[in-house]
Amino acid sequence: MSQSLEAVFNPSSVAIIGASEDPSKFAFRRTRTLIDGSYKGKIYLVNPKRAELFSRKAYPSILDVDGPADLVVVIVAPRFITSVVADSIKMGAKGIIIMTAGLGEAQGEAGIEGKRIEQQVLDEASKTGVQVIGPNCIGIFSGSANLNLIGYHIEKGPLALIAQSGNVIDSLVRYGQLRGIGFSKAVSAGNAIGVKFHEYLEYLKDDPETKAIAFYIEGIKEGNELIKVARETVKEKPIVVLKAGRSKAGARATLSHTGALAGDDRIVDAAFKQAEIIRVSNVDELFDVVEVLYSCPLPQGNRVAILSEGGGDNAITADNAQKYGMEVPILAEATQGKIRPLLIEGMSAVNPVDYGGVAEGNPQVIEQCVRACMEDDQVDAVLVTGLLGGLAEILNACPPAAEEQTCQELVNLVSRYKKPLFVHSCFGKETTKSLDILRSSQVPVFESSERSAMCLGMLMKYASDKRKTMEMKIPQGVEPPRSITKVAQIIERAKAGGQSSLIETEAKEILKEYGIPVPEFRLARGKQEATRLAEEIGYPVAAKIVSPQIIHKSDAGGVKLNLKDEDEVGKAFDEIINSAKAYNKEAQIDGVLLSPMEKKGVEVIIGMTRDAQFGPVIMFGLGGIFVEVLKDVSFRVVPLTKGDAYEMVKQIKGYPILEGVRGEEPSDIEAIVDIIMKVSRLASEDEAISELDLNPVFIFRDGASVVDARMILSK
Amino acid sequence: MSQSLEAVFNPSSVAIIGASEDPSKFAFRRTRTLIDGSYKGKIYLVNPKRAELFSRKAYPSILDVDGPADLVVVIVAPRFITSVVADSIKMGAKGIIIMTAGLGEAQGEAGIEGKRIEQQVLDEASKTGVQVIGPNCIGIFSGSANLNLIGYHIEKGPLALIAQSGNVIDSLVRYGQLRGIGFSKAVSAGNAIGVKFHEYLEYLKDDPETKAIAFYIEGIKEGNELIKVARETVKEKPIVVLKAGRSKAGARATLSHTGALAGDDRIVDAAFKQAEIIRVSNVDELFDVVEVLYSCPLPQGNRVAILSEGGGDNAITADNAQKYGMEVPILAEATQGKIRPLLIEGMSAVNPVDYGGVAEGNPQVIEQCVRACMEDDQVDAVLVTGLLGGLAEILNACPPAAEEQTCQELVNLVSRYKKPLFVHSCFGKETTKSLDILRSSQVPVFESSERSAMCLGMLMKYASDKRKTMEMKIPQGVEPPRSITKVAQIIERAKAGGQSSLIETEAKEILKEYGIPVPEFRLARGKQEATRLAEEIGYPVAAKIVSPQIIHKSDAGGVKLNLKDEDEVGKAFDEIINSAKAYNKEAQIDGVLLSPMEKKGVEVIIGMTRDAQFGPVIMFGLGGIFVEVLKDVSFRVVPLTKGDAYEMVKQIKGYPILEGVRGEEPSDIEAIVDIIMKVSRLASEDEAISELDLNPVFIFRDGASVVDARMILSK
Repeated sequence: MSQSLEAVFNPSSVAIIGASEDPSKFAFRRTRTLIDGSYKGKIYLVNPKRAELFSRKAYPSILDVDGPADLVVVIVAPRFITSVVADSIKMGAKGIIIMTAGLGEAQGEAGIEGKRIEQQVLDEASKTGVQVIGPNCIGIFSGSANLNLIGYHIEKGPLALIAQSGNVIDSLVRYGQLRGIGFSKAVSAGNAIGVKFHEYLEYLKDDPETKAIAFYIEGIKEGNELIKVARETVKEKPIVVLKAGRSKAGARATLSHTGALAGDDRIVDAAFKQAEIIRVSNVDELFDVVEVLYSCPLPQGNRVAILSEGGGDNAITADNAQKYGMEVPILAEATQGKIRPLLIEGMSAVNPVDYGGVAEGNPQVIEQCVRACMEDDQVDAVLVTGLLGGLAEILNACPPAAEEQTCQELVNLVSRYKKPLFVHSCFGKETTKSLDILRSSQVPVFESSERSAMCLGMLMKYASDKRKTMEMKIPQGVEPPRSITKVAQIIERAKAGGQSSLIETEAKEILKEYGIPVPEFRLARGKQEATRLAEEIGYPVAAKIVSPQIIHKSDAGGVKLNLKDEDEVGKAFDEIINSAKAYNKEAQIDGVLLSPMEKKGVEVIIGMTRDAQFGPVIMFGLGGIFVEVLKDVSFRVVPLTKGDAYEMVKQIKGYPILEGVRGEEPSDIEAIVDIIMKVSRLASEDEAISELDLNPVFIFRDGASVVDARMILSK
Repeated sequence: MSQSLEAVFNPSSVAIIGASEDPSKFAFRRTRTLIDGSYKGKIYLVNPKRAELFSRKAYPSILDVDGPADLVVVIVAPRFITSVVADSIKMGAKGIIIMTAGLGEAQGEAGIEGKRIEQQVLDEASKTGVQVIGPNCIGIFSGSANLNLIGYHIEKGPLALIAQSGNVIDSLVRYGQLRGIGFSKAVSAGNAIGVKFHEYLEYLKDDPETKAIAFYIEGIKEGNELIKVARETVKEKPIVVLKAGRSKAGARATLSHTGALAGDDRIVDAAFKQAEIIRVSNVDELFDVVEVLYSCPLPQGNRVAILSEGGGDNAITADNAQKYGMEVPILAEATQGKIRPLLIEGMSAVNPVDYGGVAEGNPQVIEQCVRACMEDDQVDAVLVTGLLGGLAEILNACPPAAEEQTCQELVNLVSRYKKPLFVHSCFGKETTKSLDILRSSQVPVFESSERSAMCLGMLMKYASDKRKTMEMKIPQGVEPPRSITKVAQIIERAKAGGQSSLIETEAKEILKEYGIPVPEFRLARGKQEATRLAEEIGYPVAAKIVSPQIIHKSDAGGVKLNLKDEDEVGKAFDEIINSAKAYNKEAQIDGVLLSPMEKKGVEVIIGMTRDAQFGPVIMFGLGGIFVEVLKDVSFRVVPLTKGDAYEMVKQIKGYPILEGVRGEEPSDIEAIVDIIMKVSRLASEDEAISELDLNPVFIFRDGASVVDARMILSK
């Protein structure tokens, strides 16, 4: 699949159907940037109404061009699309970009007709494996081929950009240019009926020109594939995603735009986290982060040294550093010893370092202090804040050459010690020679203190995730069920009986097959059988109604706990059956489930649901008010690694409860992870189960027990 | 007090002791900006070594000047300070600014000597009421007097800036200048031994030139006064505070800088919230917010209309709007009816509005759409995002004059409809004539989508707080204690007996005096008395050890609950006494406290502690895991209004528990507020009590009961 995108990004020939010389036309600018660029392949301009365009020969039809065109760009009215696509394929196209708008994304009649045309195009393309990009897109740019179909000049550089929305491409390219960041590839994906995000990713993973990948996504299709490919890609290069649709109004805006589903944002967050995709919330944040990710050395930890001319700037920066997850450690004695003699007496050499009153006139002190920090094993990164870059500008005491020399030496320190150096400067908005020296090398310069800390924090997180990937994220095998046939039989039988969900006994049978711990259970159909089975199990016992129609058993008076003898069991049996019948006259009553009373453990919930974008998703939370009031739950997308499972347990706010508070015993985290992994296997194997709730699960010091289970069948 | 700051900000004459012509000296730049500015009063330069400075007469001593100098600036070595201050006061100074550093803030010997000098200066100044600013400061600027003692040019404008750190003044003035924001006053407060923050505030509240006030604070002294004055000031003009020291490292930086205490940041947050001070976390955020607060009309609610050329930018902006607390409502049918015909068919007129494909060539459409939104009663503010400001620059279809005309009309709409209009533009970093038209009027332009939303959210919150102030924040009276003498006697007696805390009976007696509900209680000193008293109270009863040395009663085996008869009470009495003795042999045992068993309510904690900066602070939280695991508590500074008390109850995450979940009854919120208000009165009246814990307090459907109480005495 990814091989054939080669014909899109590096085609040996390109045809534009609907090429135009009329400056008021959309096609005009696309045609112009293609012709005016340094594209080396053949160009065919197709327009039945013209014999010549841009002083070149124009072809009446794609079938008339002199040789096959690898890539065909389609800019014609919707009603002509299916026929030009068919002709293009006949001619031998390997890739087709349909720029025309007003198809599947349109509202009303036009939208219905548009979807029909899209489907026809797809059907036609699938026969020969032609790649289709768009419709409703503004073009692509490929640096390696000097191919620009976007309509304005784009600088080449290390960033690949894939965006669903055309106007976001405009904004992003504009921002990039202002920031001096160029592009290796830029793609307006539009309605994305053909090539999907994960397919672009597969290509970009191995693209030598691309050092970082940025996506703008509105709705995700085939999210699961995206995560899978992303997991492989992040080993090579960072992926940053700006995903719209967090809010309802945001989702409304995307819906009316591309007709894509925005999806549950919590699940999107979880999935991105699992794949180590970095999610940003803004265009400016995107560029901040991207630039830093591909240009700075990766820090080995989260400990930062902060330096400036004053305690005020230092204090603000230290606050920001903490906000973004950094530690600001006390510097080693040896380091302080190197720094202290450089400072005015009484100024802090502890970290933050305050070289105020010295550095302004003699900026070399900055380099000396930074060097001492870089040499300190306890420091992973250095953040200089304050006036550097403008010392010469505001203070007559500082000669410009000295400041420029200092900046050059700072750049050298980064190369030598391979630790990131970030500079926040009050002059960050301005252009000074000193700052340019930093900027043009590996030292990012920020005009905002907060941004500098945010980006350094992001870089540290990225580096730490990368280390973790090596250490821990080796997917662990989970035992298969003892008998997959038995599981299938249970589900078949329930479906055949018209059940939309499994009764508790069926659900627990399946759990048992997967090795998930459930207490012993017996189904009693009559009172006598109940007392006999209770005897077998051993007192005290719990009794629960079993009926496909009664899901909320307590509400139906269908649960009796802690029954201590034959009398109590007999009485409970009658009461349960009577209450259930009163609760729902229509209900089919299968009997009463008897189990030993479980000793009390910490209550947790483990659940599974299927997301339209990402497929099966696992949920974990503590029981009771934690779920009901605080919504304190975590999500992960299947497949998940054992590392993911541990993380999702530790991520909830109530985690200390599991560690044991107020003298309580710690809970068996390993047992929770084991159940999560087994549920994850069950979810991927048994698509017949659409939702699952294990609630409550009791967690003990050793082991766990699923006290109640509910499974909903797929329709 | 504030009147005498008039002599500092509008002095009729100024003297500089230590004035210098040597460009390498700190004093040089201060002297220069004073002389070169348009200051109209008399200037006396004092320097015993020179007969002339800057071609003016130099005076050997402040006692030699030709007439009294209202304001004296002191830039001399520490050892000369006390004598020049004494001379200045003798001469008739009304204000003294000591710029010299290396006094109280210095480390080691110098610091001890510095503190001594500071105290001498204060003693001397207090005799005549002279205002002292500094030491360790870089000067002041006063626009009304054209008085610049800061050392570089400062533009006049509407913002008053008071900063503890000199280098932050430099940064802030620099940022302000880059943003086109000028200053009415700028003060480097330094060690602030004399004039305090709240005194500046008192002056600035009535300063006609000041439209907004910004503080940079490291440690707060007399925080309670600050809050009191701030509450009055925010009725007139907004206060924005950048407070450093959130993090431990931040606190380290401030500590070594001015020797000020950073304080518990949660309390600072609570106090600022109560006073409606807007807290920002960064310099750039500060200017964003300030500019918007004084220049835009105040919105009537939090509903925003979002418009751009594309669904992508709209989606991002809608997400941000939600993030910062805005609603993005569906526009009224009438409004949609006005907008829809302007758009390409199928584009959204719902909100966000997508005028893509039309506005680029005909920007007048933007004005028409914005006008429709402004006319809609359901819209409180309008946020335009995307390409406005650069349409003419990138799209040849748009004539520059048309875009400029549109921007002028947008400005007119703001004046006409008095609703804020914010613009986020991809060209926000650049200078275009169109954007300048917006910027120079009441339309802020942002280069970052997130910032635009953040600032609009902040403006909405500010406007809403202002409305609330009118509606609800009328301080409510709380009943005084029945007998203040009795309260004093209890405390006296305990102190005389050498107690460091009150025993439960004493604490509950005091609560009763304040009308705080406690269950009936009796102290039994012997077993027989215990059974007799239990009889009187009525079974079942609770029994608890009473001993000044035993604070954690349960740990000492000193609590027995639900005692049903004489036998149980007798047995419990013996067990409690024995356990207590075994737990702490030295403990003085006062007896056993008997109370009726309270019916179970929702457990909450109400506490009080005294903060070094803000004085008494009230805490509220739900009991159990909510406090212990989740630290789910809220704080407010005394005095608090009933509105504050309601807010602090509603603010905790577990609040739904009090509303009643899972079919539980709702709790009596009014009863909680009542206890909070009474504790607040107790805290302000009885300084002898340094800390207080009511834990647990049971809250019922009607009423509440303080089941256990602890009070720690001040030393």
